Amino acid sequence: METCFTQNNNGRRSKMGWGDLGVNGEPSRETPNIDKMATEGILFPDFYSANPLCSPSRAALLTGRLPIRNGFYTTNAHARNAYTPQEIVGGIPDSELLLPELLKKAGYMNKIIGKWHLGHRDQFHPLKHGFDEWFGSPNCHFGPYDNKNRPNIPVYNNSEMVGRYFEEFQIDLKTGESNLTRIYLEEALDFIRRQKASQKKFFLYWAVDAVHAPVYASKPFLGTSKRGRYGDAVRELDFSVGEILKELHNLGIAENTLVFFSSDNGAALISAPTQGGSNGPFLCGKQTTFEGGMREPAVAWWPGSITGGQVSYQLGSLMDLFTTTLSLAGQHPPDDRIIDGIDLSPILLQGKVIDRPIFYYRGNEMMAVRLGMYKAHYWTWTGSWAELKQGINFCPGQNISGVTTHDQREHTLQPLLFHLGRDPGEKYPINVPSAEYQEVMPRIISAVKQHKKEMVAGEPQLNVCDLAVMNWAPPGCKKLGKCLTPPQSKPWKCDWPH
Amino acid sequence: METCFTQNNNGRRSKMGWGDLGVNGEPSRETPNIDKMATEGILFPDFYSANPLCSPSRAALLTGRLPIRNGFYTTNAHARNAYTPQEIVGGIPDSELLLPELLKKAGYMNKIIGKWHLGHRDQFHPLKHGFDEWFGSPNCHFGPYDNKNRPNIPVYNNSEMVGRYFEEFQIDLKTGESNLTRIYLEEALDFIRRQKASQKKFFLYWAVDAVHAPVYASKPFLGTSKRGRYGDAVRELDFSVGEILKELHNLGIAENTLVFFSSDNGAALISAPTQGGSNGPFLCGKQTTFEGGMREPAVAWWPGSITGGQVSYQLGSLMDLFTTTLSLAGQHPPDDRIIDGIDLSPILLQGKVIDRPIFYYRGNEMMAVRLGMYKAHYWTWTGSWAELKQGINFCPGQNISGVTTHDQREHTLQPLLFHLGRDPGEKYPINVPSAEYQEVMPRIISAVKQHKKEMVAGEPQLNVCDLAVMNWAPPGCKKLGKCLTPPQSKPWKCDWPH
Repeated sequence: METCFTQNNNGRRSKMGWGDLGVNGEPSRETPNIDKMATEGILFPDFYSANPLCSPSRAALLTGRLPIRNGFYTTNAHARNAYTPQEIVGGIPDSELLLPELLKKAGYMNKIIGKWHLGHRDQFHPLKHGFDEWFGSPNCHFGPYDNKNRPNIPVYNNSEMVGRYFEEFQIDLKTGESNLTRIYLEEALDFIRRQKASQKKFFLYWAVDAVHAPVYASKPFLGTSKRGRYGDAVRELDFSVGEILKELHNLGIAENTLVFFSSDNGAALISAPTQGGSNGPFLCGKQTTFEGGMREPAVAWWPGSITGGQVSYQLGSLMDLFTTTLSLAGQHPPDDRIIDGIDLSPILLQGKVIDRPIFYYRGNEMMAVRLGMYKAHYWTWTGSWAELKQGINFCPGQNISGVTTHDQREHTLQPLLFHLGRDPGEKYPINVPSAEYQEVMPRIISAVKQHKKEMVAGEPQLNVCDLAVMNWAPPGCKKLGKCLTPPQSKPWKCDWPH
Repeated sequence: METCFTQNNNGRRSKMGWGDLGVNGEPSRETPNIDKMATEGILFPDFYSANPLCSPSRAALLTGRLPIRNGFYTTNAHARNAYTPQEIVGGIPDSELLLPELLKKAGYMNKIIGKWHLGHRDQFHPLKHGFDEWFGSPNCHFGPYDNKNRPNIPVYNNSEMVGRYFEEFQIDLKTGESNLTRIYLEEALDFIRRQKASQKKFFLYWAVDAVHAPVYASKPFLGTSKRGRYGDAVRELDFSVGEILKELHNLGIAENTLVFFSSDNGAALISAPTQGGSNGPFLCGKQTTFEGGMREPAVAWWPGSITGGQVSYQLGSLMDLFTTTLSLAGQHPPDDRIIDGIDLSPILLQGKVIDRPIFYYRGNEMMAVRLGMYKAHYWTWTGSWAELKQGINFCPGQNISGVTTHDQREHTLQPLLFHLGRDPGEKYPINVPSAEYQEVMPRIISAVKQHKKEMVAGEPQLNVCDLAVMNWAPPGCKKLGKCLTPPQSKPWKCDWPH
């Protein structure tokens, strides 16, 4: 069984949201290929990321473990979103076992295309953690920088850089033009063809970032969407997914390949409307633990094995892809640590549904939990008043009294309870004295108690920053004459404002 | 060509919204039959009602004309939503030509099942305006009343009442149980079978009201939805649509029958979450001229003539069904008056798109206009501060500064402009000094100027109220011993608060 994860990217400023798929109700309906993928496979309306932010979400995907376990969080302040900008010192610890490392033992060839985001220093690179190939960047495609105070982000081909964004790899911030998605598509098709030719099993993690601000698309797609530049990027992404599926068919390996499409966090409403997507009917967006921050578009496709036209109400998580992939590859997940992802193969292959909770973390705090149709918020916070006053708003146009709080509000003694079936927008907390609240909360409290009892937090990786660790002199820079001189090391405690 | 309009109901308190269809992204995806209808036909994501309220919307559907032309509006106060409660004196004027009157000339048998809502006094009844048969009620299924201060609403079979709600036709407000949708379904199937047997062309207007508060469903559907009682009602409605389509196939007339599914206004968010639906990503709901108030679910189905799997970006209106149906029946719309509906047959049959504006009225005021992807608000108003303080909120949880205004705010000199493609939620007004605003507004201003120049307002029908005109002694009451004594006539100017 081959595997492709097609995943679109994130950072602070943008992200493909649940509501961006035509099949999930985006009014312009500009994702015909992914919509078709859904009609040929399983659509998961209740699928979650493990975190409302990029790096932690990706670390969870590849380890099958919550960020608080695998170290992708901060303890510098309470309940803060942290990720891996250039100045971050940490990255994925060697002690974590990543999906490609485990698949390698089963004879898989593993490639990541696009944004890695699990640490940009040498020891954290994909090829040190089980991937055989890499084409892409370690960090977000922000810039251009001056290469004095801050270097431009390198693009790697395997273990060496082949250029930098805004230098060898252009993104025209004014027009939005960039060929990156096309390059990433060609990389994907080439990799798949090579594995087919050499009859190797493969795992492809196609982690493109066109829908992350600054959003971009190649010339044939620019100006073609009814939704503006963000829509152009979505259209190219959708086109590319279609090309990948078509190639799998052409090569005669579609029936041996599981393809899963999802996203690493909710649409970044702060970048809307020109650079941000849609979370459909859900509350708020990226950075928050409301549904808009973590409910993801999700489609599983595997002709021959998965019956088409299904909708699964399974509560799913990106972390499940770790466990499910191992299971389908005949491997067991490591038994020396807690794995949060569950094996979805009974859902994919037999239409079953497994009861399980979903935990919503922001940094070091469990903010909320979902059990069945109910979601209980133990803490609420959209972002700080100070940031709101500067125009940084993760819930633009939405204001639900006592819910979208601008201070960190604790509800641990009496969680805010919502029924996500009749109230997907988290607008109507269930009355505490009601029979429903009294019946449901004990079950949730019990699940939380069990979860906290078993929680052993990992060493936080996102606490320390240092300008010296930025991408000054990545491997391969000498050959290209692109090495820069790092400043002296002066580590500091990173500041995570929200 | 036969025609069915399946339409779900409204009133002040509830309504099936754009976002309630699975195919439009309702997360619980509980409309498999309508979703299938869409995959076999055309889905219209950009389809509008002619008004954000029930009676005017239905009057527009059946006359092809805006409520301000056909009289279904009030001049008692500026920009007010008015409809036809029991105390209303007015109704559809004889001077208006209704779709069934015109189809009758082409040999059609016409039936309305469900809520009529174009006036409950004798002269306004469906059988006086072209329908051959009627089963249903003239007003909303509110109650129960005491039959002293206010009579219960009668249910008619053709020209005579056969009982009253909460008396012969039960709606259990506590459990939500009622057999009305089942009865309406059986009425529909019976009518269709009879027309087939007698080889008559037919027009069926299936105007059921289960999703209007108080929402109801029959026993087999109660408690079956993930979305609560509102979802139960949607599920029964969806089931019934499936049964109607199935019967058309069984009778061998599916290929001769155009079926159009839509709704008469947006979901009533004021009734959410237990009695109200979803407007997906759109702003506000019923009663407002934001997208959530007037953007409707819309599906056209006609096996053999309409190619399945289409999405049409045509800006459509319920009023178009008037003109389109006449066109397909080989009839011309009346040429002695302005008809707002356009002929959609080139869209249905040839996949064309026709450029046309959409006007958003609230009572006697043109509040907004859409042209292409742009919408300009000339006036904004969600509802009054006074009502908001009483908890009457048509935009719960949504608050967009300068847009969701609680006073009637005039923008006629500088309309608020939105791009509905990249900003379907009407959150980000386009800057007035921008080139985009300066380029777009002249075209909109020109369309509005033309529209206003040609506007001849009809005699307002919704100005006068009188307790004496309520359903005290409807035709047929004597036979049933159900006549009540009306009070003395004391007309007053109806008060429309929002």
